[in-house]
Amino acid sequence: MSEKAVIIGAVAAGSKAACRYKRLFQDAEVILIDQDTYISYGGCGIPYYVSGDVSDEKELRSTSFHMVRDEYFFRHDKGVDVMTGTRALSIDRDKKTIRIEKSDGKQTDISYDKLMLATGSRAKRPPIAGLDLENVFSVSSLRQAMGIKEQITTGQIEKAVIIGAGFIGLEMAEALSDMWEIETSVVEFCDQIMPGFVSRNLSGMAQHRMEQNGVTFYLGETVEEIIGENGRVCAVKTGKRTLDAQLVISAVGIEPNSDLARDAGLEVAPGGFIVVNDRMQTSDPDIYAGGDCVQVTNLVTGKPGYYPLGSLANRQGRVIGSNMAGKDSRFKGAVGSFVVRLFDSALAGAGLTPETAAREGYDAIGIQVGQFDRAHFYPEKEIIFLELVVDKKTRRVLGIQGFGGEASGMYARVNAVATTLHYHPSVSDISNLELAYSPPFASAMDIVNAVANAAENYLDCYYSPAHLEDFLECWNDRDCGKYFFLDCRAEADAKPFEEKYPDIWKSIPHDQLENRIDEVPRDKILILVCNTGVRSYEAQVNLAAHGITDTVSLGTGIAGMKECGMRF
Amino acid sequence: MSEKAVIIGAVAAGSKAACRYKRLFQDAEVILIDQDTYISYGGCGIPYYVSGDVSDEKELRSTSFHMVRDEYFFRHDKGVDVMTGTRALSIDRDKKTIRIEKSDGKQTDISYDKLMLATGSRAKRPPIAGLDLENVFSVSSLRQAMGIKEQITTGQIEKAVIIGAGFIGLEMAEALSDMWEIETSVVEFCDQIMPGFVSRNLSGMAQHRMEQNGVTFYLGETVEEIIGENGRVCAVKTGKRTLDAQLVISAVGIEPNSDLARDAGLEVAPGGFIVVNDRMQTSDPDIYAGGDCVQVTNLVTGKPGYYPLGSLANRQGRVIGSNMAGKDSRFKGAVGSFVVRLFDSALAGAGLTPETAAREGYDAIGIQVGQFDRAHFYPEKEIIFLELVVDKKTRRVLGIQGFGGEASGMYARVNAVATTLHYHPSVSDISNLELAYSPPFASAMDIVNAVANAAENYLDCYYSPAHLEDFLECWNDRDCGKYFFLDCRAEADAKPFEEKYPDIWKSIPHDQLENRIDEVPRDKILILVCNTGVRSYEAQVNLAAHGITDTVSLGTGIAGMKECGMRF
Repeated sequence: MSEKAVIIGAVAAGSKAACRYKRLFQDAEVILIDQDTYISYGGCGIPYYVSGDVSDEKELRSTSFHMVRDEYFFRHDKGVDVMTGTRALSIDRDKKTIRIEKSDGKQTDISYDKLMLATGSRAKRPPIAGLDLENVFSVSSLRQAMGIKEQITTGQIEKAVIIGAGFIGLEMAEALSDMWEIETSVVEFCDQIMPGFVSRNLSGMAQHRMEQNGVTFYLGETVEEIIGENGRVCAVKTGKRTLDAQLVISAVGIEPNSDLARDAGLEVAPGGFIVVNDRMQTSDPDIYAGGDCVQVTNLVTGKPGYYPLGSLANRQGRVIGSNMAGKDSRFKGAVGSFVVRLFDSALAGAGLTPETAAREGYDAIGIQVGQFDRAHFYPEKEIIFLELVVDKKTRRVLGIQGFGGEASGMYARVNAVATTLHYHPSVSDISNLELAYSPPFASAMDIVNAVANAAENYLDCYYSPAHLEDFLECWNDRDCGKYFFLDCRAEADAKPFEEKYPDIWKSIPHDQLENRIDEVPRDKILILVCNTGVRSYEAQVNLAAHGITDTVSLGTGIAGMKECGMRF
Repeated sequence: MSEKAVIIGAVAAGSKAACRYKRLFQDAEVILIDQDTYISYGGCGIPYYVSGDVSDEKELRSTSFHMVRDEYFFRHDKGVDVMTGTRALSIDRDKKTIRIEKSDGKQTDISYDKLMLATGSRAKRPPIAGLDLENVFSVSSLRQAMGIKEQITTGQIEKAVIIGAGFIGLEMAEALSDMWEIETSVVEFCDQIMPGFVSRNLSGMAQHRMEQNGVTFYLGETVEEIIGENGRVCAVKTGKRTLDAQLVISAVGIEPNSDLARDAGLEVAPGGFIVVNDRMQTSDPDIYAGGDCVQVTNLVTGKPGYYPLGSLANRQGRVIGSNMAGKDSRFKGAVGSFVVRLFDSALAGAGLTPETAAREGYDAIGIQVGQFDRAHFYPEKEIIFLELVVDKKTRRVLGIQGFGGEASGMYARVNAVATTLHYHPSVSDISNLELAYSPPFASAMDIVNAVANAAENYLDCYYSPAHLEDFLECWNDRDCGKYFFLDCRAEADAKPFEEKYPDIWKSIPHDQLENRIDEVPRDKILILVCNTGVRSYEAQVNLAAHGITDTVSLGTGIAGMKECGMRF
């Protein structure tokens, strides 16, 4: 028996589902509908198209073998009929029909046996004036991106303002400032970049790297108005300043397109997320939904989560195509793995941060370490930073985040933990995590094991760490008389600090500590430092054996401070 | 109460255990014994020391902060007493003493409360004459490596032969031929390199890459004799040829040093592996063992496994240090993750290969795919190859192996699967494996998902793959009249093949297949090819709908063939 499937939305999830369904069910009729004429494009590639890394928008719409994924391609390579410029207006679930409107305004009904909603998301509109001025963009579609690129290639954009320091905002900031040398500022309401994705410690490193590359940040500031002149943007007014801008990109987040689902009486959660089960079925079993319009299970918390990512959209699309064809395929949920390139560095993570864990009711801690990504004796290497988020009560690992060079092994480390998060690993599981080892790729005791070891030492009360931000707080308050900085590095590294801050900074190399224990003040809070936190931790243990316990060890060491741009 | 721990063997596991134990138990006395004077070195770094990547052996013995890990370091930084040049002769378990012999020949007994054996491994000696000739080396210790380096720096080594194409053999082959331009041959008894670690398909790629860099391989050949002249090696005689050589490295594997354990009556398994539980205790609960001298659980098969790797030795050492100090720390076992750099490429894996799975009684298949490591529209990218090993009956993933550029994302992919293997993931778990995605790091439907999707399609009988070696067999037999090659690539790519082999090769681009179905011969076995196996798989599905089912699709496509060095 032949069957007819209709899929509304032809970017990631929809295209994938259509092709998978058709492959499994060669007799079926498959209709893929999209309101746009650009379909099946790599939306996550937009920043690279804007930057010029990807020269032509066609590349975002092509297969790896250079065929443009247009109507011809879907018909002849995939056996799928595509209707572009076609809006789905409503669904009649009883009759199993969809009312559609073509670009010429004509409306008709088409029938379906199986229906999929892949209606995607739209950019959130912040509640401010000026969003509709010329040269104010969002990055919600390829069409918007083409508009941005058209503007910047005129060479007349000297200053740009980006609203929002999440993924899209940061990627666009790089795109504008790196290749096009546009003076770019990012305004963010929160007091850190990538809020909710990484801790302030790691975000500080990423921010510093971007600042070194010419991007300016205004954190903790709210945009109050986008100011225009003759219908065109000319400035952005925040609570604290007015920034000139010939181009503005609003990237304050996205929200699901679920009006069609809601109007059809399908279950939609607060926030507009379409509710699906693990077969990606909506509350109507003949209607599936996937991609940026649905919520799925957060596999760390077990609660609903929202992960609008092309990668998950593709996986969901395949699950839906299989299920529409009668198979039993499951999408269990996600842990929210992410990675973002920022110039020559990268920020990545998965699961919860210390802050989001607290919000979810966990008594969690983030433990940070910095270590070389490869064997320290191997000539090519760099220090990378990981933060492991651990539930204090159960010792369960709730999340991992990292910062490092784009070509460093940080990405491999975060993935290696991320892919185990849904198994609810313990700290000791990560202590023994079995990364493939040889010196050009990893350390014998790799950073991913080291960060779990550090967490274990913390939980067992051997290790009392200071985070970067704690350290900064003490440092800024260094003249209060409460703190004393004990530098465990080799004398040559530590001496300049001791000379500059003789009252509060002392150099005792770790190998001399036992013999010089009497020189350690017992009436101060000791802040132990070394380059990456290894020796300062050992010193902490040694001092404890001498009854000196009011100590903290700077987890990521001086290397971490430098990465954040701190100058002593 | 103070306690005294003695640790025999001071390279990886032993040093780690000593330091960990002392940190947790600051009052304890810790004695670390080694027969050599070089201790606590990165043995896996030896090939890079020989190559010159690491210029000085001291670097292999130093911390990341450039302190040499010698007696002074262990005493003053770690609180551990080291006795080098000291052999442990026997253990009296009743008296809890160890008879030791110092380099001056003097013997004494030392007592212990807790004992750890980290006696490591030694190079296997193949049963041939000539192993004791001058300039015949193994790579079992830093001292041996220093001997090799001393020889090659004389500039008088023009030709070298390496016996054995496992990790060490290949790494040494690179070390000799790359930096020192020594004409290097590798003789291997098996018919592939890295036997037992990767399939012949992937090993063919790695071998080709090494051949391109000047290394010669003689596979399926047995060394019969090492020939000397005036006590010095001058040639290696195999079953088929005699190879001139001024230097020979025997790298046919290692075996555990367990005589001390056996003589003390501890349980030792066939093969000489010391038996330990998951707390790394031997059959005597006061005696622990770890590193290259023990067997641990293979977490894929549940049977004993042998994983002599510095990375695992370190993890085991930490577990032992914790347990000796009274904690309850577990080392559950290993899946055998590995990675080896071969010039600008890398080979990595974990778990079982198709061949080792068969030996373990699984009815398994290895499914191979080639795909870009990043978004195909991202300018920097390269094709990498993965093989997923799957149990046909249970759909369980038993292993993953990969080949790709050294700087490609292959390492991240293999690790992401490797770290989940002990959870016994299904194919569909890997289909939905959540790697962090953005175009500079991964594809939306990443190769790691793609290889699981392909495995699923195989298990569900949509996909019938040909492996590289199957393809080669058909190709070599192409004039037999049974086979017909259908090329699904764009016409420009396929035409030259069609013109060169008009009787057996036909170009029908995939988008034209439906309209040209009558041109497809129905009386031959069809071998479907495209560049990476994507279009040929789709063609297979399309052909099946037309009743043409006697087809195979070349899984890794023409790209895979080229990587193996095949010229058409």
